[in-house]
Amino acid sequence: MDILYINEKEKATRLLEEARRSSTFWSFFIGSTLTSTIPGISIAGPDPEGTLLTPTLDVEYLELGKPRTMPIIPVTPEGLPTPAIITRAMMRRIQLPHLIINAGAHAEPLVPHVSLPSRIVANPVNSGKALPLSNVRGLLEESKQLARNISGAADVHALGESIPGGTTTALAILEGLGYDAYGKVSSASPNNPHELKIKLVREGLSKCSGTNIDEVLACIGDPVHIAMAGYLTGALESGRRVILAGGTQMTAVAAIAKALGAEFDGNVIIATTAWVAMDKSSDIASISRQIGIPVVAANMSFGDAPYPGLRKFDEGYVKEGVGAGGSIVITHLLTGLGMRDLAKLVYDEYLHLMSS
Amino acid sequence: MDILYINEKEKATRLLEEARRSSTFWSFFIGSTLTSTIPGISIAGPDPEGTLLTPTLDVEYLELGKPRTMPIIPVTPEGLPTPAIITRAMMRRIQLPHLIINAGAHAEPLVPHVSLPSRIVANPVNSGKALPLSNVRGLLEESKQLARNISGAADVHALGESIPGGTTTALAILEGLGYDAYGKVSSASPNNPHELKIKLVREGLSKCSGTNIDEVLACIGDPVHIAMAGYLTGALESGRRVILAGGTQMTAVAAIAKALGAEFDGNVIIATTAWVAMDKSSDIASISRQIGIPVVAANMSFGDAPYPGLRKFDEGYVKEGVGAGGSIVITHLLTGLGMRDLAKLVYDEYLHLMSS
Repeated sequence: MDILYINEKEKATRLLEEARRSSTFWSFFIGSTLTSTIPGISIAGPDPEGTLLTPTLDVEYLELGKPRTMPIIPVTPEGLPTPAIITRAMMRRIQLPHLIINAGAHAEPLVPHVSLPSRIVANPVNSGKALPLSNVRGLLEESKQLARNISGAADVHALGESIPGGTTTALAILEGLGYDAYGKVSSASPNNPHELKIKLVREGLSKCSGTNIDEVLACIGDPVHIAMAGYLTGALESGRRVILAGGTQMTAVAAIAKALGAEFDGNVIIATTAWVAMDKSSDIASISRQIGIPVVAANMSFGDAPYPGLRKFDEGYVKEGVGAGGSIVITHLLTGLGMRDLAKLVYDEYLHLMSS
Repeated sequence: MDILYINEKEKATRLLEEARRSSTFWSFFIGSTLTSTIPGISIAGPDPEGTLLTPTLDVEYLELGKPRTMPIIPVTPEGLPTPAIITRAMMRRIQLPHLIINAGAHAEPLVPHVSLPSRIVANPVNSGKALPLSNVRGLLEESKQLARNISGAADVHALGESIPGGTTTALAILEGLGYDAYGKVSSASPNNPHELKIKLVREGLSKCSGTNIDEVLACIGDPVHIAMAGYLTGALESGRRVILAGGTQMTAVAAIAKALGAEFDGNVIIATTAWVAMDKSSDIASISRQIGIPVVAANMSFGDAPYPGLRKFDEGYVKEGVGAGGSIVITHLLTGLGMRDLAKLVYDEYLHLMSS
């Protein structure tokens, strides 16, 4: 099976059929939270401080084939490459229209991108002062406006993300909004640091005073989940369908949009990788069922990859990011290619990258 | 007649028919040149220094119905409103997908917008050092990349601009590229300051050393014409059609693209207002014939406007800007409404503006 239906198969099938027949527009949201600099939280960079540049390097690489801000591809401490290699391999095959959206990157990317005026790097989740309330409101309003402005350009909008530390802030958002998510969010590491995440999130949540959605987000949120939720809300209001291309973080995006009053009506799904969907150290099925959002997964394996750096994906490293899973699903729909052939495109991209 | 065909009617008709049948995506380019602060050059602001904020206020108003950076609508020294009121009235009627693109605004607009990394405010045209060569090349490359990224979203791309002082830099670009344009570019004033423009442009051109296209642009260009030319080139390469929505400045955009090797093949037109096309103090027909680009004009009159501020448009004030003429043409194509009815939409917008 090329696509795994994790829940609500009927709704998911309908939306994927729509994506197959119509045009899809991609938006890649980037931003940072200083949560990622807390040792042990994120391996989405060579070291904790290095995670701050990853979103910028990810989208520069996605656009140009090599980063510009620094001439290095984002890697884990073990040298495993960013999941953006998957997205780039898929985008080169189908060349869908797309934009990069800067919700609060540590460094402005040196490729054309949308700037949200309220963009900001968030403070650590355990500070209880993640970002000012005015930025939360600004990001929601601006991303909603952006969705209204451009959503007429396509029937289906796919949203990807790059924010190291994002599963930790996603956990905080989910718990802050009343969902049961402890121990259920994913990680780019095979050794999911649940205890550390839970400790930081509990510390952050214990410092929150207000209970309104924007107050909770100001207390423990991050710019990327907030902006994606605003965009999702605006796109749905404009009558569009949305594919949230990511792992457990996407449940936090959906949770915010739902708290803001968005009506899903079968018009939103999460599309991720089997590495997330089948992960034993997280539970996207449980969280998405609580929220009421269908989940599908690209059943890709790098088991036959000639490169150890890719085979490690099958051992639970990296898993997802920069819209990887959704990009595989959409490329599969549009080309009819199976997972084997699509994986080969990634191997080619990896070879190209390693030899350049 | 609702649409005036200024030249190459057959090509223009074909492209407009395409725009009627398909989707159009708008991009509004903003930027500044310090040329506009030279007294006597621009009335696109309350005073010479005030022109620097006009592009930012224009697009904030276009998006929100009121500017955010300062709570004032851009006006001429006589209090005549920005042509963005026309564009906003049209966009509210047809709601096409659109983006704002910051190529070098003096102040970052407080609405979502695309940032080009090489964005820069240009020095005065007579300095002969308008902008660094690296910014010229960066702007061309980035805007071309942007066009490649998003042009798949629509068959037709309409490009508007806001850059006070733009007709003067357009004149410099046209002359620098070998066209006969002295005395032929338009002005937002009924008293077109040709002598001053020619003096400044000659001074600037006399200081240019290189003759390559990018060297000429670095000497006397501005960020908006450069970025629009890059976008035009990228959109054409992607097989799209382009409507350059503006007055004589658009001939400079076409001239740059042509110098860069773009093939027009009937896939580009200029769409402007009759206020520009019929203007006795400029000659868009002559310049566009030299370049080989069709021109159409929206035959709108504000002669029956109940507001003196709008009736002045018929006396040669303002004339064009922020894609006004092209927005009327496209709205006419998509709705079938005649100029009378479309003008009423502008009167309503003006009333709304004055009463808020």
